[in-house]
Amino acid sequence: MSSGSRPPKAVRERFAPYMDLAARTAEGKWGTTRPNPTVGAVVLDADGNIVATGSTEPAGGRHAEVVALDEAGDRARGGAIVVTLEPCNHTGRTGPCAERILDEGLATVVYAVADPNPVASGGADRLAAAGLDVYGDVGMTADGRGADVLRGPLGSWYHLARTGLPQVTWKYAASLDGRSAAEDGTSQWITGPEARTHTLARRSHHDAIVVGTGTTIADDPSLTARDAEGRPLERQPLRCVMGETEVPDGARVRGEDGRFLHLQTRDPLTAIRTIASAAGPGGESVLLEGGPHLAGAFMQAGMVDRIEAYIAPALLGAGTSALIGAGVDTIGQAHRFTIETVEMIGSDLFAVLTPRLRIPIEQREG
Amino acid sequence: MSSGSRPPKAVRERFAPYMDLAARTAEGKWGTTRPNPTVGAVVLDADGNIVATGSTEPAGGRHAEVVALDEAGDRARGGAIVVTLEPCNHTGRTGPCAERILDEGLATVVYAVADPNPVASGGADRLAAAGLDVYGDVGMTADGRGADVLRGPLGSWYHLARTGLPQVTWKYAASLDGRSAAEDGTSQWITGPEARTHTLARRSHHDAIVVGTGTTIADDPSLTARDAEGRPLERQPLRCVMGETEVPDGARVRGEDGRFLHLQTRDPLTAIRTIASAAGPGGESVLLEGGPHLAGAFMQAGMVDRIEAYIAPALLGAGTSALIGAGVDTIGQAHRFTIETVEMIGSDLFAVLTPRLRIPIEQREG
Repeated sequence: MSSGSRPPKAVRERFAPYMDLAARTAEGKWGTTRPNPTVGAVVLDADGNIVATGSTEPAGGRHAEVVALDEAGDRARGGAIVVTLEPCNHTGRTGPCAERILDEGLATVVYAVADPNPVASGGADRLAAAGLDVYGDVGMTADGRGADVLRGPLGSWYHLARTGLPQVTWKYAASLDGRSAAEDGTSQWITGPEARTHTLARRSHHDAIVVGTGTTIADDPSLTARDAEGRPLERQPLRCVMGETEVPDGARVRGEDGRFLHLQTRDPLTAIRTIASAAGPGGESVLLEGGPHLAGAFMQAGMVDRIEAYIAPALLGAGTSALIGAGVDTIGQAHRFTIETVEMIGSDLFAVLTPRLRIPIEQREG
Repeated sequence: MSSGSRPPKAVRERFAPYMDLAARTAEGKWGTTRPNPTVGAVVLDADGNIVATGSTEPAGGRHAEVVALDEAGDRARGGAIVVTLEPCNHTGRTGPCAERILDEGLATVVYAVADPNPVASGGADRLAAAGLDVYGDVGMTADGRGADVLRGPLGSWYHLARTGLPQVTWKYAASLDGRSAAEDGTSQWITGPEARTHTLARRSHHDAIVVGTGTTIADDPSLTARDAEGRPLERQPLRCVMGETEVPDGARVRGEDGRFLHLQTRDPLTAIRTIASAAGPGGESVLLEGGPHLAGAFMQAGMVDRIEAYIAPALLGAGTSALIGAGVDTIGQAHRFTIETVEMIGSDLFAVLTPRLRIPIEQREG
C-alpha cells in the first residue's frame, strides 16, 4: 500500500481545510471520470498560499494532480500538493503523477486515501524515497472512513477497488412514519420539489439504476438522469429491471440507446455481478430505486452499502411501507446503519447512511 | 398587545445574539416556573457589555427581568435589557417588571414575544411612553414562530395563553422505516442510550403524560421523569391513561402520589380538556407517549401541536408502525409538518416538528 506515515495532529489540522477544498473540487466531476477515480487536488506555494486546484478529467484526460500542477506552473516549486487519493505511480494513458510531482520540485505531498490498487500504488513510497515530506490519512476519520473524501465521488471507486463489486446505494423517499405511498397508492408528492430535483440530478453519479419488474409495470419509469429543467443529462446510467416477470416491449425503461438490462433473477448478488459485467471496468456504483420488496431483498442479503433517504415531514399512518421483507423478526436482527450526513433539502430531511458493524474500510498493512 | 415596533434590521442583528443567550438562560428552568412563563433576560450596560443574566424563579419567586436587574445593580443604568417575553405590566405576586425597568434607568428594552395575556400585557407601551427605546420581535422569524424562543420553554406557555388549551407534544421513537417494534413485538432498544436518557429527562418539561390503556397493560410503564442515573426528578408530570378499558389496580402508573388520572374517553379533545382542568392554571404542556393508535387519534383530530421524533438508523422492514389510523386515505390528506430542528443524539436523529398550514402564531393587531 503506502508508507505515507499517519501525520502528527498539527500537520493534519494544518492541511485539513485544503483537503476539504480538494474534496469539494472533485465533487463537480461526480460520475464523469470512469474508470478513473474522481480525485481533487490543491497546490500550495512555498509560502502556503493556494495557487491552483484541479480535478480528474474524463477518461484519457489528465489526472487531478496534473491539472492542478499545469495551472500552478512555477509557483508549485518548493510547495505542497494536497490530493484526495495517493498519487499514482504507474504509466497508464498519462504518465505517473508521482513523477510529475518530483519534476515540479514540490516539497510536500499530502493525501487522504491510500491507493488500494496494486498496479497504481506505490506513489507515496516513491515520493518519500525521493526525500519529500509525505503524509497520508489527512482528512480521514480515525476509522478510515474518510470524513469528506470517501463520502464523495471517490467512495464508489474505492469500494469497487477493495471488494470487486460495485457499491449499492438504496435511495428512497418516505414520510416521517416510513410510508412511501398512501393507502390508495398515491405517492405524488411525498417529498418537495427540491428533493425531487436533487435525486434526479444524482442519478448521473451512478453507472446503473435498478428497479423491480413491479415498479416498471406499475409506474413505467424512464430512469433517466435529468437536470432541474427535466432535460436528460449527458451521462446516463445503465437502466436495469430485476425480476422474473417479462418487461413489456413498450416500457419506457427500454429506451432507444441500448443501455437497458433485464436481470432475470431474484438474487441480489447475481444481479449485481451481472450489472458489473455489463457495465465494464467503470461500473462502480449501482442505484437501487425499486420498491419496498426489492429493497428488502437487498437489505436481507447485506448488499446495501449506502442509503440515501429523503424523509418528508409528513405523517400518513397507513399505506405502503418503504421497506418490506428485510428478514428481521426481532429487534436484535435490525439492520443497523450509521448516519454519515443529514441536511435539509427544501422542507425535507436528506440523510446518507452506511452500514454499521462492517469491517473498517481501511485495514492498513504497513 | 404591544406597541413595540418591529425594529430595523440593524437593531435585530445587533441584539439577536443576546436574545439567543436570553433564550438559553431560560432553558435550564424548563418546566419549573408554572404557572409563570419561563423567561430569560440579559442586561447590557451603557457600553453594550453583558453585565447580568436571569431566568424566572419558581412560582412566587422573581421574574427573569428582576433576577437579572438585581444582579446588574447600578451597571444597568443607561443600558439595555434583552428579554424573551414582553416585560409584564401587572402586579401579581411580584411588582410589574416594566416599573422596575423604569426605576433602574434603562435606556433600551428588547423583547422577542409580545405578551398575549391581556392582564399582563402593556409593558412595552408603558416603557415606550416613558421614553425608552422599545423593540419587539427581536430574534423572531418572519412568520412569528420565534427562532429559538418559542421552540424553548416559552412555547407551551404561549400556546396555552393563545388557545386556552395545553400544547400537545407527540414523542415517539422508531426505526428509519417508521417501525416502533419488530415483528415479534420486541422494541428494546431501537434507539441508543443517549436518546433514552434525553427523553426521560425531557418528561419533566411537561405537566401531563398520556398513554393508552393498551400500553399500560402491555408495558406497565411508571411514566416518571428520571435523570441519567434513573433517579426520579423532583418535578413529576400528571400520569394519564386514556381509554375505556380499566387500569389494573397494581399498575405502576397509578403510583402513590395521587398524580394519576384515568381518561375514560376515546376523544382527544375531551381528554385534553380533562387534563387541563385537572392540571390547573399551570397545565400548559401534555406529552403524548402512547402507542400508534393513540397517536393516530390525536393526529386525525388535529391535536398534535409538536412532534419530538427519535429516529434510529436501523431498518426493520416489518413490525409495528409508529403511527396507525391517522385518517389519511390519499397523499393529499397527509398531515404535513415543518422541521423546526434536527440534531444527532448519540447515533440517533432527533427532530422537532410543528404543524404546517396553521394560522401563524402571531397575528398582531397593531
